[in-house]
Amino acid sequence: MSGDASPSAAAPVAAAPALATSGVVADPLVEYLLRHGDDRLVLGHRLSEWVGHAPILEEDIALGNIALDLVGQSTSLLGLAGAAEGKGRDADALAYHREAVEFRNVQLVEVPRGDFAVTMVRQFLFDAYDVLLTEALQGSAHADLAGVMAKAHKEAQYHVRHSADWVVRLGDGTGESRRRAQRALDDLWRFAAEPTTPDDVDRAMLAAGIGADLDALRPRWDASVREVFAEATLTVPEKVLPARGGRTGRHTEHLGLMLAEMQIVARSHPGATW
Amino acid sequence: MSGDASPSAAAPVAAAPALATSGVVADPLVEYLLRHGDDRLVLGHRLSEWVGHAPILEEDIALGNIALDLVGQSTSLLGLAGAAEGKGRDADALAYHREAVEFRNVQLVEVPRGDFAVTMVRQFLFDAYDVLLTEALQGSAHADLAGVMAKAHKEAQYHVRHSADWVVRLGDGTGESRRRAQRALDDLWRFAAEPTTPDDVDRAMLAAGIGADLDALRPRWDASVREVFAEATLTVPEKVLPARGGRTGRHTEHLGLMLAEMQIVARSHPGATW
Repeated sequence: MSGDASPSAAAPVAAAPALATSGVVADPLVEYLLRHGDDRLVLGHRLSEWVGHAPILEEDIALGNIALDLVGQSTSLLGLAGAAEGKGRDADALAYHREAVEFRNVQLVEVPRGDFAVTMVRQFLFDAYDVLLTEALQGSAHADLAGVMAKAHKEAQYHVRHSADWVVRLGDGTGESRRRAQRALDDLWRFAAEPTTPDDVDRAMLAAGIGADLDALRPRWDASVREVFAEATLTVPEKVLPARGGRTGRHTEHLGLMLAEMQIVARSHPGATW
Repeated sequence: MSGDASPSAAAPVAAAPALATSGVVADPLVEYLLRHGDDRLVLGHRLSEWVGHAPILEEDIALGNIALDLVGQSTSLLGLAGAAEGKGRDADALAYHREAVEFRNVQLVEVPRGDFAVTMVRQFLFDAYDVLLTEALQGSAHADLAGVMAKAHKEAQYHVRHSADWVVRLGDGTGESRRRAQRALDDLWRFAAEPTTPDDVDRAMLAAGIGADLDALRPRWDASVREVFAEATLTVPEKVLPARGGRTGRHTEHLGLMLAEMQIVARSHPGATW
């Protein structure tokens, strides 16, 4: 797959201006692929922390399957990022041998899993975005990205049904489950806008026919999450200071801790299998 | 599924003598279903501990999928055990609300995951048994058990290819990987015999047409693992004192620790979803 990565997309991307992010002049295509790969890698790992600890076996399996979908998508996207970068780094090198400041995921996905309500509200906020993002990127001019996202879109449709069902079930459930779901939404809402907030990388990729139009996607995402939260009888916070910076490498301290744990095996034995 | 559990098998099972295990007179069918459900639940959890920590993303996903297969099988088998028991306990109740002494898994599956070599050698020892067990139990007179095992057999065929490949790759790999694989085999071999060692429960289930013939299965398992270890250039230990007791509730201290972690969420909030 890496050998013929995006020949169709090479020309417009090369023509796009190099962008300064975190002080490093970066190729916007590489940045773009890393962003979407990192979102899935980090969220997949957060979800997988539930495996073996979910309150019911069926949900343990469901969360595990969603985690594996996301990590699988990240493997493909990081592989494309490595190929586009052209420095010989593969998906594993990018996953296991970058520092937190080099990660390009939104902060939403790195927040600790919290309780089940936090996990599900966060998952729903992401899934509601992801199902629209993957739908749009199926039509990307970057053929390999389009292929990965077409498969991811099928998975995202299942994911968002699952997490939306849980949000409604928790919000419209017992007093305790409702209280926890509302608290989760209150805590997480400030992270909710970052995925649909475009910057120069997004605009360059949109102009090149590669990226999604986040300005068009944002109101659809907003309407869909508000509809589900209303059904869940949860109140969307009115005024919050939106968290930003994940896309350019500014992360909460939680990401570093997660990566330390995730990367220790690979880093302790470079090139080995444990 | 639970409503029509094994009508065909009810008569011979009822005729089988009740057995004393761990001081409790138990129904051999319930014991038998718990054994195979617990093996998969415990091993699935041990494997899932790797998710997010495997040295390569592809293997992270592969181990995660195998873990989910096993936990899925355990959910079915514990569901059948609960139905056969007739006390209203479902799979979740059996998974999350039993103490270690009530678990019926072999000790092999409860040993800590160790390094990647321990994980893979243990997995192979189990898979090589499981592929033969599930093959045999596809023909069980207990229709529901046969159905679960027919599906499990397809999965086990994949599992044993995967773990056998890894054992060969590790054993016949670098000096370090070979050293670790040999140490894993040396440490684990004493746990290897328990799954294929029949006791009164196995004999009662075999007589009822429900269970597998472990005496027939044992030499096939032994030949298949020795063949793979030979290809891996690993030496099977000659004399070890076999570990036993898991089937009747005698476990290593490791199981209690694993269960404490696995059960805490379900026990902290009975009936809730976190």
